[in-house]
Amino acid sequence: MSPARETIGIGMVGHAFMGAVHSHAWRSVHRFFDPPLVPRLAVLAGRDETRAKAAAQRFGWADVETDWRKLVVRDDVGLVDICTPGDSHAEIAIAALEAGKHVLCEKPLANSVAEAEAMAEAARRARERGVRAMVAFNYRRVPALAHARNLVASGALGEIRHVRSVYLQDWLSDPRAPMTWRLRKESAGSGALGDLGAHIVDAAQFVTGEVITGVSALTNTFVKQRPSEGGGTDEVTVDDTALFLARLSGGAVASFEATRFALGRKNAMRLEVNGSKASLAFDFESMNELQWYEGSGTEAGFRRILVTEPQHPYVGAWWPPGHLLGYEHTFTHEVADFLGAIGAGTDPAPSFDDGLRVQRVLDAVEKSAAAQATWTAVEEGK
Amino acid sequence: MSPARETIGIGMVGHAFMGAVHSHAWRSVHRFFDPPLVPRLAVLAGRDETRAKAAAQRFGWADVETDWRKLVVRDDVGLVDICTPGDSHAEIAIAALEAGKHVLCEKPLANSVAEAEAMAEAARRARERGVRAMVAFNYRRVPALAHARNLVASGALGEIRHVRSVYLQDWLSDPRAPMTWRLRKESAGSGALGDLGAHIVDAAQFVTGEVITGVSALTNTFVKQRPSEGGGTDEVTVDDTALFLARLSGGAVASFEATRFALGRKNAMRLEVNGSKASLAFDFESMNELQWYEGSGTEAGFRRILVTEPQHPYVGAWWPPGHLLGYEHTFTHEVADFLGAIGAGTDPAPSFDDGLRVQRVLDAVEKSAAAQATWTAVEEGK
Amino acid sequence: MSPARETIGIGMVGHAFMGAVHSHAWRSVHRFFDPPLVPRLAVLAGRDETRAKAAAQRFGWADVETDWRKLVVRDDVGLVDICTPGDSHAEIAIAALEAGKHVLCEKPLANSVAEAEAMAEAARRARERGVRAMVAFNYRRVPALAHARNLVASGALGEIRHVRSVYLQDWLSDPRAPMTWRLRKESAGSGALGDLGAHIVDAAQFVTGEVITGVSALTNTFVKQRPSEGGGTDEVTVDDTALFLARLSGGAVASFEATRFALGRKNAMRLEVNGSKASLAFDFESMNELQWYEGSGTEAGFRRILVTEPQHPYVGAWWPPGHLLGYEHTFTHEVADFLGAIGAGTDPAPSFDDGLRVQRVLDAVEKSAAAQATWTAVEEGK
Amino acid sequence: MSPARETIGIGMVGHAFMGAVHSHAWRSVHRFFDPPLVPRLAVLAGRDETRAKAAAQRFGWADVETDWRKLVVRDDVGLVDICTPGDSHAEIAIAALEAGKHVLCEKPLANSVAEAEAMAEAARRARERGVRAMVAFNYRRVPALAHARNLVASGALGEIRHVRSVYLQDWLSDPRAPMTWRLRKESAGSGALGDLGAHIVDAAQFVTGEVITGVSALTNTFVKQRPSEGGGTDEVTVDDTALFLARLSGGAVASFEATRFALGRKNAMRLEVNGSKASLAFDFESMNELQWYEGSGTEAGFRRILVTEPQHPYVGAWWPPGHLLGYEHTFTHEVADFLGAIGAGTDPAPSFDDGLRVQRVLDAVEKSAAAQATWTAVEEGK
Repeated sequence: MSPARETIGIGMVGHAFMGAVHSHAWRSVHRFFDPPLVPRLAVLAGRDETRAKAAAQRFGWADVETDWRKLVVRDDVGLVDICTPGDSHAEIAIAALEAGKHVLCEKPLANSVAEAEAMAEAARRARERGVRAMVAFNYRRVPALAHARNLVASGALGEIRHVRSVYLQDWLSDPRAPMTWRLRKESAGSGALGDLGAHIVDAAQFVTGEVITGVSALTNTFVKQRPSEGGGTDEVTVDDTALFLARLSGGAVASFEATRFALGRKNAMRLEVNGSKASLAFDFESMNELQWYEGSGTEAGFRRILVTEPQHPYVGAWWPPGHLLGYEHTFTHEVADFLGAIGAGTDPAPSFDDGLRVQRVLDAVEKSAAAQATWTAVEEGK
Repeated sequence: MSPARETIGIGMVGHAFMGAVHSHAWRSVHRFFDPPLVPRLAVLAGRDETRAKAAAQRFGWADVETDWRKLVVRDDVGLVDICTPGDSHAEIAIAALEAGKHVLCEKPLANSVAEAEAMAEAARRARERGVRAMVAFNYRRVPALAHARNLVASGALGEIRHVRSVYLQDWLSDPRAPMTWRLRKESAGSGALGDLGAHIVDAAQFVTGEVITGVSALTNTFVKQRPSEGGGTDEVTVDDTALFLARLSGGAVASFEATRFALGRKNAMRLEVNGSKASLAFDFESMNELQWYEGSGTEAGFRRILVTEPQHPYVGAWWPPGHLLGYEHTFTHEVADFLGAIGAGTDPAPSFDDGLRVQRVLDAVEKSAAAQATWTAVEEGK
Repeated sequence: MSPARETIGIGMVGHAFMGAVHSHAWRSVHRFFDPPLVPRLAVLAGRDETRAKAAAQRFGWADVETDWRKLVVRDDVGLVDICTPGDSHAEIAIAALEAGKHVLCEKPLANSVAEAEAMAEAARRARERGVRAMVAFNYRRVPALAHARNLVASGALGEIRHVRSVYLQDWLSDPRAPMTWRLRKESAGSGALGDLGAHIVDAAQFVTGEVITGVSALTNTFVKQRPSEGGGTDEVTVDDTALFLARLSGGAVASFEATRFALGRKNAMRLEVNGSKASLAFDFESMNELQWYEGSGTEAGFRRILVTEPQHPYVGAWWPPGHLLGYEHTFTHEVADFLGAIGAGTDPAPSFDDGLRVQRVLDAVEKSAAAQATWTAVEEGK
Repeated sequence: MSPARETIGIGMVGHAFMGAVHSHAWRSVHRFFDPPLVPRLAVLAGRDETRAKAAAQRFGWADVETDWRKLVVRDDVGLVDICTPGDSHAEIAIAALEAGKHVLCEKPLANSVAEAEAMAEAARRARERGVRAMVAFNYRRVPALAHARNLVASGALGEIRHVRSVYLQDWLSDPRAPMTWRLRKESAGSGALGDLGAHIVDAAQFVTGEVITGVSALTNTFVKQRPSEGGGTDEVTVDDTALFLARLSGGAVASFEATRFALGRKNAMRLEVNGSKASLAFDFESMNELQWYEGSGTEAGFRRILVTEPQHPYVGAWWPPGHLLGYEHTFTHEVADFLGAIGAGTDPAPSFDDGLRVQRVLDAVEKSAAAQATWTAVEEGK
């Protein structure tokens, strides 16, 4: 009916929670945005063929592979989307990049700094060949946080003094909640730290435009044994909560907390930034809002900005003011940005280097926590 | 890859704001729900062929028609989705129903009681032939409001005493905002009343399970002349705001207000219900929340229920707790329910009779307002 | 220890809830403000001598009378403070004014327009002799509402379009709550209307600077029989709730609701005003806050102004920013203003004329409600 | 007029902000509560006679002294109330206790652990003679926090897992704000830490019933030079902000932050406690509210408890539900409790031992901060 836009074949590895939401983003992005490349849901990889086929039909993928190694070299795949647990990210991403495929990789980038370094190195090499890599810190694409970043970048906050960020969930509060791969160090790398802490480290660095230079941390495991699937109990080998203090490169002080035990908090990813000229606050449980304070005098007060105006980041593609967006939109924005960067031949953000930087912070947190909160500098990259 | 599910061809008339959001619902519904029929986006109708084709490509429709009369009789169309202004609803809906097509019609059902009666009559006749009709009061599908309805139906509120509902927007606050079809009586029927008031009348009747029996109303037009597209000004011939008091069939008293002049309120569709045993409050600007009060004693207080648990209506199809849904989800829920009813051979709600009932309330409001707030009974249907 | 400031003897009639809070205001006002006259708690009147004496000791009054007629003519009394139910206001106030005493009278001014007219007439005559009368609409002295009034008066809201005000309590929700004088027409005049509705009528007129010109109303009594003190039940002869629509002298439309049946709302005296340039919202349950919206663009949003800055009305006399004030402070502000007006020889506000104006609105509401919501103009005063 | 209740003469040292609010408490307590001793405002001490006399008259004190040494031995003084900066607390308190006077001492108890130990020792010796000492952590007397303590003590929260507490002000955000005694180490001991941090340490220990056993801390001074009164600038020698992580005796992890640079936060003393069975949250900027989460299922949600019911701690002495209390009430409650303990011959809380415990935590925070966040155990008392 109209001149065909150029398409790009997507190959997605993994099809659980992240696979579902990424699929929706790939299906929807060109209905609302104008990416230079229209995604085609070419192939989904999953080890169990029956389940993979069911997922492919459900989510709208044309084909399946049971071995991701086959997926990453298929001719009809131009972009590999990695939605697996962190322990497989490095291997898949590096193989895909070497095969010349653009890569979108779920967060955290990897389970260790060494893996993340290898991935960042692979991304640098690929970049020279015009192949792009992005890590999926989707919270950067919440319009309220993207707008917060713009406000900081504009200088509206002045000097940044305080950052306060928590990511609170409660799904492990009940000691009877069963064991999962997320609670094993070998598959998940860490617990709340890598799963939730990675998001707030990235968000804080993104919004402030500064980096964390050192930390003092403590972690705790409240429930050390969980019911295992096969009966009996399994040992939880990751943190249930991680707290750390930090200093930022621009002179600000900061505190962070990630937990899955904050009873009553379902997805309270919160960020507060106090500057010398203005302050802002965000809570994902009210994700369409940004709290904003500036000025002085008798009408000063925190404003509840409903970040749903067409001038706000990403929002123009959607509905009229006050018609809220949800969680999944952050992924649609993410792939829109990635496709845009690929089309423009520019580097997407957050890059694998950004993911590596987060990984170094997580690593410093773990080292500090293991050494009784000893102040630990975040390793500088090369 | 798997046994094909039965499909149903959709024909959509209109492709503006409502067309965009309905298209997304039709594209997405079977990715999250298990409707007995999988929608196929067969054909979109629009008077301007160029714009219709652009919309079809953007939204994912296979074909276009420039005359809805052709659309409603096409063999590849099993369901007609009416997304046009209210003055064309009756003609299209009746033609579609007579052609044996299921009909989803945007709200308000019509611009007059007479039209709505004809539509309801057509729907009754169609029902005998297994053809279904539903009016698109999408706010019934906000999980928080669907849950509110369940709470009332369970008896948890006891006797309903007060209903308080407003629908506040502000996009006409500025006198320089231009003239549109929504501000002309001949195209829109009424102003804030039919556009916004219809939603809160339906929501109040839906949540309480009672009907409005009489009203006392006043309306106002704050800005009587607006810039017209062609230069000069046009007369605004609809209400800018409508307020009314009401009594409900179960003995409750109620107040309603619809306006497009509540500066700072973007889409504040609010409902409060006070019962003898519990109370609830809702605001669409925080659409994932339901405020809930029950019990007594030192721990009683309004609870902010985050209506994102898998046990809440519709939510199980989506994301984990605390991962918010947005405006467009209400439409996906709507078409899921409609497809479910078609598949099950049952009558969907809200029916055209429900839409007619809302129309009778709006009619009583207009009559009361025209007669200086004289108490006006809502006409009983046959 | 210092030159004595001039004092004024206070005589207070009544010693229940209002008596307690007024006493605190008289005891405290000169500790925080600099009134030209320092109040001396001279004498308290109560019919039961034992209870009156206990109250006098508790509240700090020097003497008691069992007949208010004696109190109003005492030489050591310069100001009479009327804290009795509404049916005795007229008689006491007129006698006190005629005796040359300044009068502070609790709201509503009276139980009928006729009584209120007589009181206003007495106040006018007294004024000529330099004797002052004020009605105790204490909510005018909430700093947030006083600030709201200043904002409207400054023109910051532009043209006032909407007023939305409710006063919600729930202490009668339980049908077993016992009969009181507040539920008998002969003692209370009306129910929620006079008790709560009077406050929001005054507040709306005060903040907007406009008057209500006409109303359409309905009232309801949900629980018609209540347990009486002596066993058995008594008939409730007042409204449990009153709702009304109104037009204001400046062209705004308005809605009001007063109820004692809004389960979960303890003292939700709320006011919203939408203007052409700004909007404000207030809820007494968060009485130190004013919600304020002005401007446009990407940082516009309702601001939560914490009305605790030294520049805010009354606040400079108290604590640093963020150190909240409570309910009783409104009375301290009230008597500070009254003493200030007496000292300055100016007329205090709200005057008995203001109280009469509120009474006329309540009267129109009752007449409209009795006539099935018929539009009823508020009687113009002389 | 009635049998005289026994009185107790109060001698207050200092008459600035704390002096004003303490005076109000002493004047008001017996008007609302039934303390076994009625306070008599006997004498106020201040170095400058003119200013002391003005304060005495303003606040209602019968006499003045210019030397606190004379005040603490006066026969008409039974209780000494210390409202001076921290550097004089030890000397005054010990002298007063040795003179056999009950002592109420503002927080922090002292500027050093050594001083606090001497004071606690003096309090122990005094106790044997029936002389009582209390430290004025007034936030324990916020009804919402007192209720929170009761909820924890009842076991309603189960095992305490997380404590999150901040005390945010912004009055130093502006670098032009002038030098004060609060910014000099020699007078104030520390900055935000002792002023604000002391409150949240006490509140966290009070509400949880646990003690802080170790900390990792960092402090920062954002503005190192301030305009001095006499022209030129002075060096700020205290912290502008202090952040620390902690472990509690019962196994919980905790984070704390005190700052005077959180632009837009006026008095945001916040506390969140997550337990295994329930969670609570408090913010002094909404001091009449307690957020409370318990239970599970589709109606679970954080409740906004309006802590204004007669059954809530202290509230029965005041107004009906929903009629808010303010900052100063916490002091009235404080002196009511202290007089009650004196009358009953029991030990008041928080005792000087409690104050010492807070001091040891502050000391550990300072040591940790000076040693780059090294984990520092809180010294055990004898």
